[in-house]
Amino acid sequence: MKMLINAESWDLEPWAALVRKARPEADVVTTTDANSLADVRYAMVWKPEPGLLGRCPRLEVIFNLGAGVDAILKDVTIPQRIPLVRIADPNMTMRMTEWVVLQALFHHRRMLAYQGQQRAKVWHDIPGQPAAEHVTVGVMGLGILGRDALRGIGALGFQRVGWSRTAKEVDGVRCFHGEAGLGAFLAETDILVCLLPLTPETKGVLDAGLLRKLKRNGPLGGPILLNAGRGGEQVEADILAALEDGTLVGASLDVFEAEPLASSSPLWSHPKVVVTPHNAADSEPQALTAYVLGQIDRHERGLPLENVVDRGRGY
Amino acid sequence: MKMLINAESWDLEPWAALVRKARPEADVVTTTDANSLADVRYAMVWKPEPGLLGRCPRLEVIFNLGAGVDAILKDVTIPQRIPLVRIADPNMTMRMTEWVVLQALFHHRRMLAYQGQQRAKVWHDIPGQPAAEHVTVGVMGLGILGRDALRGIGALGFQRVGWSRTAKEVDGVRCFHGEAGLGAFLAETDILVCLLPLTPETKGVLDAGLLRKLKRNGPLGGPILLNAGRGGEQVEADILAALEDGTLVGASLDVFEAEPLASSSPLWSHPKVVVTPHNAADSEPQALTAYVLGQIDRHERGLPLENVVDRGRGY
Repeated sequence: MKMLINAESWDLEPWAALVRKARPEADVVTTTDANSLADVRYAMVWKPEPGLLGRCPRLEVIFNLGAGVDAILKDVTIPQRIPLVRIADPNMTMRMTEWVVLQALFHHRRMLAYQGQQRAKVWHDIPGQPAAEHVTVGVMGLGILGRDALRGIGALGFQRVGWSRTAKEVDGVRCFHGEAGLGAFLAETDILVCLLPLTPETKGVLDAGLLRKLKRNGPLGGPILLNAGRGGEQVEADILAALEDGTLVGASLDVFEAEPLASSSPLWSHPKVVVTPHNAADSEPQALTAYVLGQIDRHERGLPLENVVDRGRGY
Repeated sequence: MKMLINAESWDLEPWAALVRKARPEADVVTTTDANSLADVRYAMVWKPEPGLLGRCPRLEVIFNLGAGVDAILKDVTIPQRIPLVRIADPNMTMRMTEWVVLQALFHHRRMLAYQGQQRAKVWHDIPGQPAAEHVTVGVMGLGILGRDALRGIGALGFQRVGWSRTAKEVDGVRCFHGEAGLGAFLAETDILVCLLPLTPETKGVLDAGLLRKLKRNGPLGGPILLNAGRGGEQVEADILAALEDGTLVGASLDVFEAEPLASSSPLWSHPKVVVTPHNAADSEPQALTAYVLGQIDRHERGLPLENVVDRGRGY
């Protein structure tokens, strides 16, 4: 089997080495000339250059090395019949839950303020800190990632609400859905976690209008935004304005309108913002590679692929 | 019933107000003249001034507003027959678990390095980051706090080991005990969490010899120390030396040999150290007060008090 590996600015050699080690018979290429692409059957990619996959005439399956598939869906050179598999291995899910729980606790426990005190060598217990049971975390997007994040958040004792486009149920979580349920969901939420896929409907959803509907008078002094979904979902000018006028009291952002985040962005040095470089759900290459090879085995044995993206729905 | 409230440098009035609100008939004092103390039956205290409780001739029960009782046990003016109750309300336990999970994830996800990159406006995904399932958290002290911290840590997918003075069992956790089990416990541990009570045996236990026995070649590049037990358990000079020579790669300390931490301490500005002002298990006054009043109700109805300290054991 011949596999193409292509991923934005990543170093591809460690990935190729992992595939070759697991499948010594595999023909793995990272070069993109016509000769290399001619008989590629599988592609393991992350934000591949537009047009690249359309130049693989024998391509059978595309494996996306992350949860967000918007970059591939908008590449019109890729025949629609080629299945696009979104990786949903437990390793990636757990990494995302780590990030969500870490960032929720970081703001909940006022670590930006405590780190400021540490720099100033000030020993002071900030009064009025609520326990997690008095703080509500609201997760937008109730797929595999959102549901597992809610599980982790629940283990710390936070109250939980969830929102999704269509009606869903999550054990122990009050769930809202659709446009009609959004206002009630936001009004309950102290810490908003965005794990939505990027679709035409979710583009720019995290804007001034939405942020204003978050719970006021909550126990943290105001709402917190955590976005580990997609940068296209956030309006950064609105988030900055909300931080200035107190509509938000803090944010952790893993994704940005343009990545890498430009050095001119005021988000880098904003005292209430934590920036991480789109690594919230960074999986171990070993785990992702094992998942892809397992799916290829299924495909070659005539079994259906798992986690195939619904192109109509957009995720 | 007459109650004395006394707590180091805290503002006592909010506490007194909470008790008066819940028990309008109660006589609550925060003054410490002989007249005030003459008929005090209950004392709700945190690090009371030495000798104070010995001056309450009618004292029936002492309630300690925290897990560490060492300050009270060493006050020889307090008659040994007076029961000392350690507060073990779920609120305090959850606060401690929040702190442990937050600090474990903070180091596990290399947030000190990512915050440094943010200050420098550097977009870079640090390679070689393991998932939690490849990192082992070891908790010393398997009382209520230690067991709940292990529960929270387990929800994030970390491997777990535990150590206690005497043999204990914790679901899903490999447990070691006693002097004989300490070496094997440390050799497995990437992130060490100290939640031990301060006793003559645990004084200075976190020293160079112990730190050297932690797991080498772990997936985080070296071990991490989290201490939310008692400052008397740590040898700060040894911890600083271990951070310098790579025996440790990071630490979060909530407790210190002397508190408040002196501004001259190099821990404040150490790039690998997170300092919090002994607030890991800071409970909400409402929850602590409710716990104390519930215990007083039990006592007055002739029921046994819960969580009475064993003075011989020291916790």
